[in-house]
Amino acid sequence: MTIDELRRQLLAFRDARDWRQFHTVRNLVMSASIEAGELLETVQWKSDAEIAALVADPAQRKHLEHECADVLMYLLLTADAAGFDLVEAAAEKLQLNEARYPVEKAKGKSTKYSDL
Amino acid sequence: MTIDELRRQLLAFRDARDWRQFHTVRNLVMSASIEAGELLETVQWKSDAEIAALVADPAQRKHLEHECADVLMYLLLTADAAGFDLVEAAAEKLQLNEARYPVEKAKGKSTKYSDL
Amino acid sequence: MTIDELRRQLLAFRDARDWRQFHTVRNLVMSASIEAGELLETVQWKSDAEIAALVADPAQRKHLEHECADVLMYLLLTADAAGFDLVEAAAEKLQLNEARYPVEKAKGKSTKYSDL
Amino acid sequence: MTIDELRRQLLAFRDARDWRQFHTVRNLVMSASIEAGELLETVQWKSDAEIAALVADPAQRKHLEHECADVLMYLLLTADAAGFDLVEAAAEKLQLNEARYPVEKAKGKSTKYSDL
Repeated sequence: MTIDELRRQLLAFRDARDWRQFHTVRNLVMSASIEAGELLETVQWKSDAEIAALVADPAQRKHLEHECADVLMYLLLTADAAGFDLVEAAAEKLQLNEARYPVEKAKGKSTKYSDL
Repeated sequence: MTIDELRRQLLAFRDARDWRQFHTVRNLVMSASIEAGELLETVQWKSDAEIAALVADPAQRKHLEHECADVLMYLLLTADAAGFDLVEAAAEKLQLNEARYPVEKAKGKSTKYSDL
Repeated sequence: MTIDELRRQLLAFRDARDWRQFHTVRNLVMSASIEAGELLETVQWKSDAEIAALVADPAQRKHLEHECADVLMYLLLTADAAGFDLVEAAAEKLQLNEARYPVEKAKGKSTKYSDL
Repeated sequence: MTIDELRRQLLAFRDARDWRQFHTVRNLVMSASIEAGELLETVQWKSDAEIAALVADPAQRKHLEHECADVLMYLLLTADAAGFDLVEAAAEKLQLNEARYPVEKAKGKSTKYSDL
């Protein structure tokens, strides 16, 4: 499935239920943030070994997959409500990151504590 | 640009900087959540009219677009680290939502306070 | 009840269950963030009128109260794990905010879009 | 400083700037969630050793303290806007948790993956 096809199905899902009335940009970014919290909850309290076991177990991994899915769907709905293309926006942001983190300076350093 | 092409570029960006060592599932879902908070911050304190003005102004909207982009990129990196396809996961979750919120019951109701 | 008494009860709760081993600073700030997402969820999709009704209804408000409580408890546990006093930290931060947002400039403006 | 004194100073800070008009329950819980994301950001990408070093370094720990402080202040403002006492709410929730996680069952188990 392409992301365009996913978006079409998602907008049809929304419109069949007459939910566009609730889909303000504020409500959608709130929902994306709430779902990102649920995604974080899938690894709450877990050790590295427990997270590896989660990823290796199809049933547990499915839960992680579906929480990622919920966040993605709210991003797509936000992009629709605000009138932009999500993948194009990411391609543009990635280009900015390429310039912001030059390979020779960023290599092997986690970005938060290095002096790039 | 397709999401597959974006993902390829994103993984190349990561690998050129030797950042895969930091990209555990825990670190990536934490980062998705942090970026979702920054996305929420784009509408913090804003009235409906101010959010409409934000969306109508290219410079302000670009900021919203890029915060959505950051979240999407961490979702793609999480999917890569955990070994699943993000768009397929969303298509599957959307099918579950179709069953969970039947049109005849969900129509015109926001999902949090209706008794579906 | 004072916050010192609450903290004592909370640490006793933790220690009776032998949970200190899980209470790393990382796990605690992750948990605070997850609970903040659940707090946000209490108002998800709600209109201004619906939030006013929630606050006016004891049962619904109790849910909001308990989500705030969960966040506070993780802040207190974080402060204990990192070795600082939460209320003193807030008093200090409030003093910084007093200087950062001078009354004559900040008055009547929401802080995100004003040019202070 | 007591939490009552902190709350009095915080409400005076708010009122001196005429900010109560922005302090709806929705805006405040959004702000608590945004600040919880910033708190999480203080440990983003950090290893266990790096977080231990952060806590041991006064300047870095101050940053962690102030992010905790920001979340606490929004919880206090939310409690004021919704008309409840934050510490009493936490004391009540802790009592519920005592019943929900009996010592004999919960001891030594992280709560997410145990079958309590």
